[in-house]
Amino acid sequence: MSAQDFRFIKACWGKPVDKTPIWIMRQAGRYMKEYRDVREKAGSFLKLCKTPDLAAEVTLQPIDALGVDAAIMFSDILTVPEAMGMDLDFLDGEGPKLGPVIRTAEDVSKLHISRPEDLSYVTDTIKILRNDLQGRVPLIGFSGAPFTLASYMVEGGSSKNFIELKKMMFQNRETMHKLLGMVADSVRDYLNAQIEAGAQAVQIFDSWAGHLTPRDYREFALPYTKRIISELRRDGIGEGPIPVIHFVYNGSSLLEDVQTAGADVVGIDWHIDIADARARINDDLAIQGNMDPTVLFADPEEIRERAGEIIKGNGGQPGHIFNLGHGILPPTPVEHAQELVKAVHDLS
Amino acid sequence: MSAQDFRFIKACWGKPVDKTPIWIMRQAGRYMKEYRDVREKAGSFLKLCKTPDLAAEVTLQPIDALGVDAAIMFSDILTVPEAMGMDLDFLDGEGPKLGPVIRTAEDVSKLHISRPEDLSYVTDTIKILRNDLQGRVPLIGFSGAPFTLASYMVEGGSSKNFIELKKMMFQNRETMHKLLGMVADSVRDYLNAQIEAGAQAVQIFDSWAGHLTPRDYREFALPYTKRIISELRRDGIGEGPIPVIHFVYNGSSLLEDVQTAGADVVGIDWHIDIADARARINDDLAIQGNMDPTVLFADPEEIRERAGEIIKGNGGQPGHIFNLGHGILPPTPVEHAQELVKAVHDLS
Repeated sequence: MSAQDFRFIKACWGKPVDKTPIWIMRQAGRYMKEYRDVREKAGSFLKLCKTPDLAAEVTLQPIDALGVDAAIMFSDILTVPEAMGMDLDFLDGEGPKLGPVIRTAEDVSKLHISRPEDLSYVTDTIKILRNDLQGRVPLIGFSGAPFTLASYMVEGGSSKNFIELKKMMFQNRETMHKLLGMVADSVRDYLNAQIEAGAQAVQIFDSWAGHLTPRDYREFALPYTKRIISELRRDGIGEGPIPVIHFVYNGSSLLEDVQTAGADVVGIDWHIDIADARARINDDLAIQGNMDPTVLFADPEEIRERAGEIIKGNGGQPGHIFNLGHGILPPTPVEHAQELVKAVHDLS
Repeated sequence: MSAQDFRFIKACWGKPVDKTPIWIMRQAGRYMKEYRDVREKAGSFLKLCKTPDLAAEVTLQPIDALGVDAAIMFSDILTVPEAMGMDLDFLDGEGPKLGPVIRTAEDVSKLHISRPEDLSYVTDTIKILRNDLQGRVPLIGFSGAPFTLASYMVEGGSSKNFIELKKMMFQNRETMHKLLGMVADSVRDYLNAQIEAGAQAVQIFDSWAGHLTPRDYREFALPYTKRIISELRRDGIGEGPIPVIHFVYNGSSLLEDVQTAGADVVGIDWHIDIADARARINDDLAIQGNMDPTVLFADPEEIRERAGEIIKGNGGQPGHIFNLGHGILPPTPVEHAQELVKAVHDLS
């Protein structure tokens, strides 16, 4: 079976499929007991990311348990800033901490473009997975987008209002662009290493660009993602071309710009009806989304009805990959995620 | 001077004005030393809200210090759930806490529709303010929208993913509607009491409805705000009609629905260009917004340039009230807020 024959890959290219493919952001995650067991064995979230055997193991769990149409390698977007020279830690209940924070030209000068060998645990995970998957489903690689990664590097972690980041954008524009350029080079090399290791599609997540005005999105986020996509090994490594998915969370006001980044698939969240997104996005692009993750706390009948609504909203066009509009939430009942996958396959 | 002669009130009705009026959400707030002094004197944030003399004092501070075109009574949206029978507390650094949380039909049955006398400190504040203002600028009253207030009542405070709220919406729809109906009645009575006490315009804030799908917005948020607006004393109390402003934060995907709520002014945040909002909103409605609050951390020249961009984006139409797209942030330099007010008046 060629990579290009997978339901998921076909949908990325807008080709007809037998059923709408589905995968779920953070499908390898805390809502599954099997995942929590492996994470405990690893000792910490970061150790789990850095232990290829275990990262591969949790990647496979939802393939078996849910029947999703793609695997996404288990990792975290903040491994790239760490590989650029920052210290990374995940404190329980507090989210990620990156330090020392990057605020000045001098801070930026201490960073380096990440080298593939600094992230070899990711490419090792991909190699194990390709062997374990044996062609069952395609394997997706991913990275955070430069704007999102830079926001963590400047703020030192999650942020509500991104005051330090915006200060740097507005008061120290040149340094901000220097940082974004270095992150973009790192992300490009990182994604190309994933493709060379066997990733069959890649997704670029921009979690925080949805906090920007359209003007600032066009200056500080879009150009870097666009450059990365244009510099990827889109030809792949002998399995045919590599589709690129680009998802800007909370980006429904920015769709006209987001779709110019060069990706084949545009991810959308639940703040917009898929039919409206279809009308605003070029016909030759596929769409990924867009169920509210909290719908998985509803009863199975409601989950099924709402899945059907999204499939209907897509209007029968082939370029649709079903997904949630954000990562699956830890308290989600596994049976409800199973019900969603079944419903999407039944109803399409 | 009639209330209808104020620059701000004229702009609400889409009438020509000499300069674009500006006020700033949370303009009486922690970024001002004078405010912090009064808050310290009051002992706590909630005491400040409940002491009419002090609430009036902080309301007036930005009128003098910034030269804004409207005063907004100092208060908090969560006084309404408290007046409905819940316990309210503001813990430093943790945000508001409301309890016991409302999750079941039995919980809802313990609430009552708030009575004007439970919120008399707000109407007392308004009466003091009307006397102190002596017609310098008009006075805006406000309330949270039912969906936002209910979200705090169900979650017990701020929330990231609103899991309990969504569970109630999806699993216990009838109880959710019962709660929303009681909150809507309370908000209606509360706003009418503000109008009777002398508020010359009112704003309804929906801070969290932007987390809903369009379908859920139309079921759980819009109908309640629409009913409230239709039941307000829009004729006012002898000073001419009362304009209503409705602001759904993060609602740029929902504008086509938001504008049907019946308000005269639609608030927008910075995720959308004002020119795009103009194109999507009916010509007979005014627009309030839409600067990114973090622009106030830029240099004065940049603040001025970006204010000019928004004024230009509005295309010279009279129905524009300048504002930030969210509350002013506590670390904002006061001089930058002053610069913004000056720039808006200079450039329009």
